[in-house]
Amino acid sequence: MPPFGVAVVGAGYWGPNLVRNFATSPLWRLRWACDFNTERARAIVRHLDDVRVTADIADVLSDPDVAAVAIATPAATHTELALACVEAGKHVLVEKPLAATAADGVKVVEAAAAAGVVLMCDHTYCYTPSVAKIHELTHGGELGDIQYVDSVRINLGLIQPDVDVFWDLAPHDLSILDFVLPPEAAPLSVAAVGADPVNAGRSCVGFLAMPLLNGGIAHIHVNWLSPTKIRKTVVGGSRKMIVWDDLEPSQRVSVYDKGVDVVDAPEDARTRRLVSYRVGDMIAPALVETEALQNVVTEFADAIRSGRPPRTDGWAGLRVLRMLEAATRSTEAGGQAIALTTEREGSTP
Amino acid sequence: MPPFGVAVVGAGYWGPNLVRNFATSPLWRLRWACDFNTERARAIVRHLDDVRVTADIADVLSDPDVAAVAIATPAATHTELALACVEAGKHVLVEKPLAATAADGVKVVEAAAAAGVVLMCDHTYCYTPSVAKIHELTHGGELGDIQYVDSVRINLGLIQPDVDVFWDLAPHDLSILDFVLPPEAAPLSVAAVGADPVNAGRSCVGFLAMPLLNGGIAHIHVNWLSPTKIRKTVVGGSRKMIVWDDLEPSQRVSVYDKGVDVVDAPEDARTRRLVSYRVGDMIAPALVETEALQNVVTEFADAIRSGRPPRTDGWAGLRVLRMLEAATRSTEAGGQAIALTTEREGSTP
Amino acid sequence: MPPFGVAVVGAGYWGPNLVRNFATSPLWRLRWACDFNTERARAIVRHLDDVRVTADIADVLSDPDVAAVAIATPAATHTELALACVEAGKHVLVEKPLAATAADGVKVVEAAAAAGVVLMCDHTYCYTPSVAKIHELTHGGELGDIQYVDSVRINLGLIQPDVDVFWDLAPHDLSILDFVLPPEAAPLSVAAVGADPVNAGRSCVGFLAMPLLNGGIAHIHVNWLSPTKIRKTVVGGSRKMIVWDDLEPSQRVSVYDKGVDVVDAPEDARTRRLVSYRVGDMIAPALVETEALQNVVTEFADAIRSGRPPRTDGWAGLRVLRMLEAATRSTEAGGQAIALTTEREGSTP
Amino acid sequence: MPPFGVAVVGAGYWGPNLVRNFATSPLWRLRWACDFNTERARAIVRHLDDVRVTADIADVLSDPDVAAVAIATPAATHTELALACVEAGKHVLVEKPLAATAADGVKVVEAAAAAGVVLMCDHTYCYTPSVAKIHELTHGGELGDIQYVDSVRINLGLIQPDVDVFWDLAPHDLSILDFVLPPEAAPLSVAAVGADPVNAGRSCVGFLAMPLLNGGIAHIHVNWLSPTKIRKTVVGGSRKMIVWDDLEPSQRVSVYDKGVDVVDAPEDARTRRLVSYRVGDMIAPALVETEALQNVVTEFADAIRSGRPPRTDGWAGLRVLRMLEAATRSTEAGGQAIALTTEREGSTP
Repeated sequence: MPPFGVAVVGAGYWGPNLVRNFATSPLWRLRWACDFNTERARAIVRHLDDVRVTADIADVLSDPDVAAVAIATPAATHTELALACVEAGKHVLVEKPLAATAADGVKVVEAAAAAGVVLMCDHTYCYTPSVAKIHELTHGGELGDIQYVDSVRINLGLIQPDVDVFWDLAPHDLSILDFVLPPEAAPLSVAAVGADPVNAGRSCVGFLAMPLLNGGIAHIHVNWLSPTKIRKTVVGGSRKMIVWDDLEPSQRVSVYDKGVDVVDAPEDARTRRLVSYRVGDMIAPALVETEALQNVVTEFADAIRSGRPPRTDGWAGLRVLRMLEAATRSTEAGGQAIALTTEREGSTP
Repeated sequence: MPPFGVAVVGAGYWGPNLVRNFATSPLWRLRWACDFNTERARAIVRHLDDVRVTADIADVLSDPDVAAVAIATPAATHTELALACVEAGKHVLVEKPLAATAADGVKVVEAAAAAGVVLMCDHTYCYTPSVAKIHELTHGGELGDIQYVDSVRINLGLIQPDVDVFWDLAPHDLSILDFVLPPEAAPLSVAAVGADPVNAGRSCVGFLAMPLLNGGIAHIHVNWLSPTKIRKTVVGGSRKMIVWDDLEPSQRVSVYDKGVDVVDAPEDARTRRLVSYRVGDMIAPALVETEALQNVVTEFADAIRSGRPPRTDGWAGLRVLRMLEAATRSTEAGGQAIALTTEREGSTP
Repeated sequence: MPPFGVAVVGAGYWGPNLVRNFATSPLWRLRWACDFNTERARAIVRHLDDVRVTADIADVLSDPDVAAVAIATPAATHTELALACVEAGKHVLVEKPLAATAADGVKVVEAAAAAGVVLMCDHTYCYTPSVAKIHELTHGGELGDIQYVDSVRINLGLIQPDVDVFWDLAPHDLSILDFVLPPEAAPLSVAAVGADPVNAGRSCVGFLAMPLLNGGIAHIHVNWLSPTKIRKTVVGGSRKMIVWDDLEPSQRVSVYDKGVDVVDAPEDARTRRLVSYRVGDMIAPALVETEALQNVVTEFADAIRSGRPPRTDGWAGLRVLRMLEAATRSTEAGGQAIALTTEREGSTP
Repeated sequence: MPPFGVAVVGAGYWGPNLVRNFATSPLWRLRWACDFNTERARAIVRHLDDVRVTADIADVLSDPDVAAVAIATPAATHTELALACVEAGKHVLVEKPLAATAADGVKVVEAAAAAGVVLMCDHTYCYTPSVAKIHELTHGGELGDIQYVDSVRINLGLIQPDVDVFWDLAPHDLSILDFVLPPEAAPLSVAAVGADPVNAGRSCVGFLAMPLLNGGIAHIHVNWLSPTKIRKTVVGGSRKMIVWDDLEPSQRVSVYDKGVDVVDAPEDARTRRLVSYRVGDMIAPALVETEALQNVVTEFADAIRSGRPPRTDGWAGLRVLRMLEAATRSTEAGGQAIALTTEREGSTP
C-alpha cells in the first residue's frame, strides 16, 4: 500500500519533530512544509528531497496528493486551520490543545465526524513505552481498582507570556490521565488552586484535585518555580501500584506488588484488625526506548487506513480541554470544585 | 544548678524515647514513670536507678521533687492531664496534638499562662538539624520572600483506627510550617481534599492547600497508600530555594541559588523579556546528626530556667490544631477554603 | 527442647549486640558476660535477670550450664580463647577474623573438629536477607555462570590504629564472596594494591583482584578516605545479574534479566554478529527486614542441635583469613598475584 | 579575522559530530568531507552549502583553502593520515587514540613539531564543563594533594570486534587523568587485570591500578558486562574531595569539604588520637551545559591562531597511548606493574 501524503503546518518548536518523524516513516510521504514565515519552513525541510514550501494553506489543501495535515501552529489558530482541513477532506493531526476553548473543540470534533475524516490529537506522552505500559496495567486488570493518581511535573521552567502553568504543563498530565484511567475511574470534577508568588500576572504554581467516579482521587502538581526537575506519576491500585519516574532512564516504570486490604466494612472503626498489608516483589518491566512521535505518526496512518478512531482522538482532546477550562473556573471561584461532564466517544459532546 | 525533676506519663510508643532522653540529659533527673498499666511503665525504666513507677498521676503531682511532666498519652487525655499538671504548678511538655480540639487547646494555653508555668509542645521535627537550618534560612533573610512550600509525607502506612491521614501525618508538616514560615508568610486559609479509596471509613489520601499572606502558597500531600516512602519538603524563596529530603542522610538539605525574577510589572503580558532566571551553585550544608528529642528536653529545661517561652510553645500547638480543624471542616465542605485566624503568641487566642 | 546456655566474652563494640540477640532468642539462655573490665561487662547485661558477670574465663568454662561461648574480643586473643573453649567442650562462635593468622586458624579448626564441637564464624552479612537471596540465586542456577563480582565498600571511615583497610573492611566482602560463589567460581589468587596517601602508616585505600576458577573475576574496593559512603556489590552472571545496594533500603537487591551471549567461538574476531544482548525485566524481590545477628544465633543453635556444620563454619573463616594474608603478601610483592589454596570443608586444611 | 578552512576525514560514528561543530563555529569554514565511501561522506554534509565531498585525501591536502584536517577514521589509519597532513603543512585534530602504537605516536608528534603545525588530540571529555571544573580545582590548589582517583565506566556495552575493554573505554578515563592530575601526582606505573568471562576473545572487564608520584593512587574500572550504567569518578584530595557523576545532570560535580588529617608521624600506631576528620559543606557548582566538541573546535582554532599548544596536544595523546600499552603488557604479565616514563611536553619523548 502506498504511503499517505502529508503536510506539516507550523515550523516553530514542534514542527521539526513532526517533519523528522513523517520523513522517516515508510507509511508517510512528506509533501509540504507550510508556515507564514517561508524561510523557517524551508529550513526544516532543507535536507529532504521533494518537499515543497509555502506560506499559503490553500496550496496544501488543494493538493490531491495530500491526504493528511499535521497542525503545529499556536493554539489560537488550531480551530480555523483544522476546520479548513476537514472541509477540504483532509485527515487532521492537531497539537495540544485541540482548540482554544471547549466550544471551539466541539465544532472541530463534530465537523470531522460529519466529514468522515480522522481527527487525532498529538498527545505524545500517550505513545511513550512508559504510558503504554501503564495503560496496559490499568486496563488489563493487573492494577485492580485505581485508588489514586499523583502526578508531579515541576522545574525551573519558562514563565509563559500567554498561558498560566495549568495550560502550559497540565495538558500532559491530563491527557495521560484521560488515557490510562478506565471508565469506572473517570474524573468527576476539578478543584484547582494556583499561586503567583513572583507577580508574573498568572499562576506559576498549581495544584489540581480530581475525585474519581470509583471513590479514588487524581492530583496534579505543576510548577514553574521549583529548584529541581521532577516528572513523576504514581498510580495506586488495589492490586498493584506503579511509580513512573520519567527522569530515570534505567528504571522509568516500577510496578509494586503492594497494597492495603480492608477486609471488612469498618463497623467498629476502633480496631486495626480489619486492615491487611501486602508487600511483594517490585518489577521494572523492560521498555524499548522508541521515539513516541514515531508511534504517533504510525497510529495516525493506521487509523486512516482502517477507518477506526485513533487512540487519542478528538474526543480525548476535548475532554482535556474541558478539564483545563474547569481548572480555570475553579481557580477563579476560589478553589471550588467544578463538575465535569464525562461523555466518551460516540456520545454527543 | 541542679537538674529538674521530671515525670513521664504514658508508656506507649513515644514514652520510652522520652525516658531515654530525660535519663541521659544532665539538665534533668527522671523521677517517675506513670501509666495505668504499671507493668508497661516498669518495663521502660527498668534499667534506671531511682525511678518510681505508678498508675496514679496524683503520686506524681504531689511530689515536690517533680518540676515538670511530659505527657505522652493518647490525645483524648491530653487536656485533662495537662490542666491537672498546670494546676499543680508543674511545667508541661505535651505530645502532639496539644489537645483533641482547639477549644480545649485554648483552655490549656490560658491555664498555663495564668499559672505562670511553661507549656511546650513536642513538635519534635522542629528540633532536627534540618528544620533548624531551614528556620535559619527563612528567618535570616537568605531565602528572600517565601514563594511556596510543598511537603510530601507518603508511604504504605498503618491505617489508623481513630484518626484520618490528616490528623495522623499532617501535624508534622503543619508544625514545621508554623515554625519555618515567617509572619509575613503566615497561612491564611486551608482547603483540603481527601479520599478513602479503600473504604477504610476515613481519608487515607489527603491534600492541603494553604495560601500565604504574602501571595505564596503552601501545599501538603499526606498518604497512607503510597508504594514508596517519601519525606520531602521544598521551600521556594525569591533568593534561594531549599529541598529537604529526610530520607537522604548524606544530603538532607540542599540550598539552591536559583530563582526567577520578574523585573517589571507585566503590563505587556505578551513578552517574555521581563523574566530573568538565575542558576547558581547548590550548597548542602554540613548538619550534625543529633537526636532531635535531646534538643527538645534541653529547650524545655532552658525555657523553665530562663522563664521564656519555648521555641514550640502552647500557641504553636494551638495554631497546628486550628489548621487541622480547618482541614476537617474543608473536607466536609467539599474542599472549600476555611479561613484561619492568625494570632501569634501574646495575643488572646 | 530446652535452650542452650551461652556466655558472651568481650563487652566492647560487638558484645552488646550478641547479648541482645542471645537474650531475645528462645533457643538460648544467656548465662555470663565476661570481660576483663567487669564494669563494662555488667553494663551490657544490667537490664537482664540471672546473667552473671566475671573477668575470669575459667568461671565460664567450668559452668556445666554453659554449652556455648561467643567470642567478641580483639582478634589477637581469638586463638587462645577459642582453643580453651574447645578444650572445655564448649561450642564456639567467633567474631571475624577467626584468628590473627591462617596458621592459628588451622589450629582452631582442627581442634574443634577433633573435639567434635561446633565452630562457627560470625560472618554476619551472610545472614542478611540480601546476601541470603544472592546465595539462593547463585547456587540455584538462576544467575548462570558467575562472570564477575565487583564489591565497593568505601566511606570516610575511622583509620584503624592496628590494621590496614584490607583487614578492617575486606573481611566483610571476602566472607560474602566465600558464601555466594559456587565451587566452580572459587577464587584462584589475590592481587592487591594499596595506598597510604595520608601517611597513616598503613594502606587506607585498597583494591583486590581475584581471578575465578571459571574464568570470571572478583574485585573489591575498600577505602577509608571516600567522601561518600558506598556499599554496593554487583554479581554478573551469564543468565542474570544482581546489584546489591545496601544503602537503598527500599530496593536493596535488584535482579536484572540482562546478559551477553557470545554465540560462537570468535574465529573471525572482526565481526560483531556473534554477540547477542538480552535486556529483560528487572525484579527487586521483597526481602523481610530482619536482624542478621538473630539469624546467626539461630543458625548456631541449629548447628549444635543437629550436629551439622553451620553455614559459616571454621573453614569459611579460614578461607577468609587466607585471602587476607594473600592480600598482605601481594601488596608487599608490588601487587603480584598470590595463589590461593582452595580446599573446602572436609578436606585437610 | 577570517575563519580557517577545515576538512573532516572519516564519515563514520564521530564524523557527523565534527561536521556539525565545525559548521556551526564562526571560527571555522568546513570545506571537505572525505571518506572512501563518498555516499556516506555526502550524507553527513548534505544540508550544508559549499562543502565538497571526495574519497581522495589528496584533494583535501592540495587545497590551499584547507588549513586544518580533522581525522575521525579507524585508529589503524591515524598515523599515515596524520603524517600526510603534517607533510602538507596542515594542522591536525586526531580522534583518540592518537595512533595504533606509542612508537607511531612518537613519529606523529615529532613530525608535527618539526613542521611547526598544531597537533591536537580530541580528548573530548577534557572539554566538558565538569572536567574543566575538576581541572580548575586540582590545579588551583583547592583540593590540596591528590590522594586518589577512582573512575568507574561500566555498562552493558557493545563488545568490540577489534579492541578489548581497556582500549575501548579506558582512553576516556586516562585522558581525563592525564588532564586533571598535576605533575606532582603523575602516574608512575600501570598494573592491569582483565577478564573474559564470556569467551569473547578479549578482556570484557578490566581494572587498572596506577600509583602516583606523590604516594596517591589512581584506579579505573571498565566493564562491558555491567547490568547498570555507571560513569562516576571520585578525586580525593587532602583539602577537598570531588564526586563527578556524569549521569546526574542536575548535580554532576559535588565538591566535599571533607578530609582526614594525620597530625603526627604515627610513631605510636596503637592510638587513634593523631587522626582528625573534617566534615563541612558540600557544594555543587553551577555548570553551564555546553557541547564539549564545540569547545574542542574553539581550542583548536585558538591554538592555531596563537601558535600555542592546545590543551590536549600530541604529547597528551602519546601519554595516553603509553598507559594503554602498559596496561596491555601488564595483563600479559599477569598483572605485574609496568613502569611509565613520565616526560611532559617540551622534552624528547
